Amino acid sequence: MSLRFYELAAADPAVRFSPHCWRVRMALAHKGLEAERIAWRFTDKAAIAPSGGGAVPVLVSGETWLSDSWRIAVWLEESFPDRPALFAGAGGRGEAGFVKNWTETVVQPGLMRLIVKEIHDALDPGDQSYFRESREARLGERLEVLHDGREARRPALREALAPLRRTLGDQAYLGGDAPLFSDYIVFAAFQWARSVSAWPILADDDPLHRWLDGIGGLYGGLADQAPRAA
Amino acid sequence: MSLRFYELAAADPAVRFSPHCWRVRMALAHKGLEAERIAWRFTDKAAIAPSGGGAVPVLVSGETWLSDSWRIAVWLEESFPDRPALFAGAGGRGEAGFVKNWTETVVQPGLMRLIVKEIHDALDPGDQSYFRESREARLGERLEVLHDGREARRPALREALAPLRRTLGDQAYLGGDAPLFSDYIVFAAFQWARSVSAWPILADDDPLHRWLDGIGGLYGGLADQAPRAA
Repeated sequence: MSLRFYELAAADPAVRFSPHCWRVRMALAHKGLEAERIAWRFTDKAAIAPSGGGAVPVLVSGETWLSDSWRIAVWLEESFPDRPALFAGAGGRGEAGFVKNWTETVVQPGLMRLIVKEIHDALDPGDQSYFRESREARLGERLEVLHDGREARRPALREALAPLRRTLGDQAYLGGDAPLFSDYIVFAAFQWARSVSAWPILADDDPLHRWLDGIGGLYGGLADQAPRAA
Repeated sequence: MSLRFYELAAADPAVRFSPHCWRVRMALAHKGLEAERIAWRFTDKAAIAPSGGGAVPVLVSGETWLSDSWRIAVWLEESFPDRPALFAGAGGRGEAGFVKNWTETVVQPGLMRLIVKEIHDALDPGDQSYFRESREARLGERLEVLHDGREARRPALREALAPLRRTLGDQAYLGGDAPLFSDYIVFAAFQWARSVSAWPILADDDPLHRWLDGIGGLYGGLADQAPRAA
């Protein structure tokens, strides 16, 4: 089955930084699936219109257009049950839902306010004004103001990562001895940050580095070796 | 196999409020296991000395003394594999570990600062001075000062529950369609609060009530009908 995968791209089309796209990229690799990767920009709604939405990731399989990283992961799990599992069954999928919601209410909003100016700067010029306008409206602040004040906000994010840090002090992955989709959900947020920013989110001695390095090295260093804007 | 279960008790020995003990109580019910429940007080270290620790829950099975709610749950899962599962396999146990650490770094500390004075007031007089001294040292504040300022701190806890609220808007339980130990971990924190305090932690219209009511009604209303100090 041939798959096409629309990924958000920066000005440099080789730089694919979206956290939701990285979840899918890791999930595809976990399943051992190849996909034709297609660079997509915020302003290119027409290309993904058959998905019914206006955002990536979008995965296309034959006549099936799928959007939303969670739904894509569930579809991959159901469509390729003989490949390595992304979820620990139905119960584990429920618990992965909690990891997803924690990531989307704590980690991603926290990171966004630290790196939003650098995301903007990495974007294709055609995407920059859309991005600035929508994000400044959502965040209630100019990107430059957020950027200038980020040092003061970093300790709160580091502290908010405590449950992740404690868990990964006790076990190798969120999925226990081996990574599951829940690991990729959180990892993808960090991959997003380092794709556009070299500014250190974590302290050098943060034990989370071990886990991040482990996932970054999976599948031939897929994430570690991906092109970055920073 | 006969089980003995040491539970923290309030001045009224029928009131068992410890969140860690409630995790085990729900886990035993989930497995359909009976245990002889023994009231324990903070100052009664000798009674549980064979567990190697000084805190409850302690579960005793023959010559085996187990402490720590997580280790007890893992032991129950391994010892009674034919009973309903507490974890969605090894991967789900990993993800439950994240739920545990989120509960212990976000939910329980947040609740503690709201209800600590009421916990104190519910305790057996013999436990009160130990509790006051140790908790005031840990929290860096007099119990009465924490109590008087709690209204101002409640909104932050409600907001910190966002990932739980979002997850349980999408699905019935953290474990998906049916409760798992991860559900009991979080539920037990709320059971702790209502066992000693009638002060409303959540807004009346919080959608979390549906989930709390659902678990409270399980196993013949085990948690809903448990004696409370408040």
